[in-house]
Amino acid sequence: MKFIRYGERGAEKPGMLDAAGQIRDLSGHVGDIAGEVLTRLGDLAALDPESLPRVEGSPRIGACVGNVGKFICIGLNYADHAAESGMQVPPEPVTFAKYSSAVCGPDDPIVIPRGSEKTDWEVELAFVIGTRGKYIAEDEALRHVAGYFIANDVSERAFQIERSGQWSKGKSSDNFGPIGPWLVTPDEIADPNALAMWLDVNGERMQSGSTATMVYKVPFLISYLSQFFTLEPGDVISTGTPPGVGMGKTPPRYLRPGDVVTLGVEGLGEQRQICIADT
Amino acid sequence: MKFIRYGERGAEKPGMLDAAGQIRDLSGHVGDIAGEVLTRLGDLAALDPESLPRVEGSPRIGACVGNVGKFICIGLNYADHAAESGMQVPPEPVTFAKYSSAVCGPDDPIVIPRGSEKTDWEVELAFVIGTRGKYIAEDEALRHVAGYFIANDVSERAFQIERSGQWSKGKSSDNFGPIGPWLVTPDEIADPNALAMWLDVNGERMQSGSTATMVYKVPFLISYLSQFFTLEPGDVISTGTPPGVGMGKTPPRYLRPGDVVTLGVEGLGEQRQICIADT
Repeated sequence: MKFIRYGERGAEKPGMLDAAGQIRDLSGHVGDIAGEVLTRLGDLAALDPESLPRVEGSPRIGACVGNVGKFICIGLNYADHAAESGMQVPPEPVTFAKYSSAVCGPDDPIVIPRGSEKTDWEVELAFVIGTRGKYIAEDEALRHVAGYFIANDVSERAFQIERSGQWSKGKSSDNFGPIGPWLVTPDEIADPNALAMWLDVNGERMQSGSTATMVYKVPFLISYLSQFFTLEPGDVISTGTPPGVGMGKTPPRYLRPGDVVTLGVEGLGEQRQICIADT
Repeated sequence: MKFIRYGERGAEKPGMLDAAGQIRDLSGHVGDIAGEVLTRLGDLAALDPESLPRVEGSPRIGACVGNVGKFICIGLNYADHAAESGMQVPPEPVTFAKYSSAVCGPDDPIVIPRGSEKTDWEVELAFVIGTRGKYIAEDEALRHVAGYFIANDVSERAFQIERSGQWSKGKSSDNFGPIGPWLVTPDEIADPNALAMWLDVNGERMQSGSTATMVYKVPFLISYLSQFFTLEPGDVISTGTPPGVGMGKTPPRYLRPGDVVTLGVEGLGEQRQICIADT
């Protein structure tokens, strides 16, 4: 099942897709696709979409999860991306924070901050926790996943790397966290470790890869992270990016106002963002 | 004025202190000390505490801010603490994330994670944003502060430094973010850059300092951070710690179950935490 949030920013409604890909309104059943609702998405999936009100028109698509808690990113999780960044694959996962205030809809603009010269892209497989847990065993880990989706881990490389350290500074600008368009339940994803992924800028292919080359896989990441803190419904984990980021190009290629970024992960839909300058 | 949140965890009620230091119930006026309510604390301060219901007994004290958004910590912001950590004062602020799921009440236990050998303390002056802003000028910055309070930036040094990088991993364990006991409005803090601060473990003085030796001051920090992302009501900024952390002792001294940590900042009250092992 594919869940979606639609409507004006900050006032999104919950929905699900019917067999024709049309949005159906879930707001008669739940307030939002967020928090404890994520623990019982299975109940909602049992609803017949045809029984729900059809949403007419083309509303804005919001972030596919509301009220995101921790937004945990995994760095250097593709061996070939680590190489292009001039870094080694670490002996255990590098994790860093994207503040959840950066979360936005999949087609909202990428807002290039004032003074930014190095705004970059990263297509990633992300997922959201549905069931709370701590010290989770790896063979139990996938039970904690409510769903998968695309994230663009938008990054300002100068803020991230050249501005006195800790990457969150370059990972958390407003709109640097588009997620969606859909939250796809795990039953639709036969193998999260075999999903093709791609990202284009102005129609030119920049990233092309597969989750098959991820170093630390989803179950390991869940178990690993849960050693440090409780994972809660609404926590988002984004699993890292394959090669082809702008920083890794020769010469580097960064985003400018007017650029159009499109990206996708197999089975999870597509995102499309227009780059704009912050005013 | 001093605002407080009291009651069971997750169900705290808003309150304020009367002239006798007694808690008065504010829940007839606001739902919580959180979010947009922080923008209009001035209106609440105009209430006569004597007109509010007196709270009897000794309820648990919760985190002094509900629903914390970004929890932004400043690293190495005291020259003498940087020296004891073997690091240089950076040319611009080092910032790092503490996930807000770590937030807890000022007297809740410090939960030492499984496998932790290096759980450490850091008394800090913290504040919460009350008015949204981006690209804030330094001379306008203090208008964005809703109030000041104490934070103990509890840190697991092995998780932070020895586990493949990015400090959030060692800063965000459950209960690693006690804040409070009170949110103190700025009118009661004549100069946030001249506050004595201290921290004891089992009654032995470990940290003793003053915000006077902070490298990057509150107005600069607000202006600086707002270049990277919008600061929103409920965002907490913790400004760094003076010398005396366990990591800086010879030999290092870390927290063990049964240890009692007490700490205070001038005008902002005190915290008291018992250390327990995670079960």
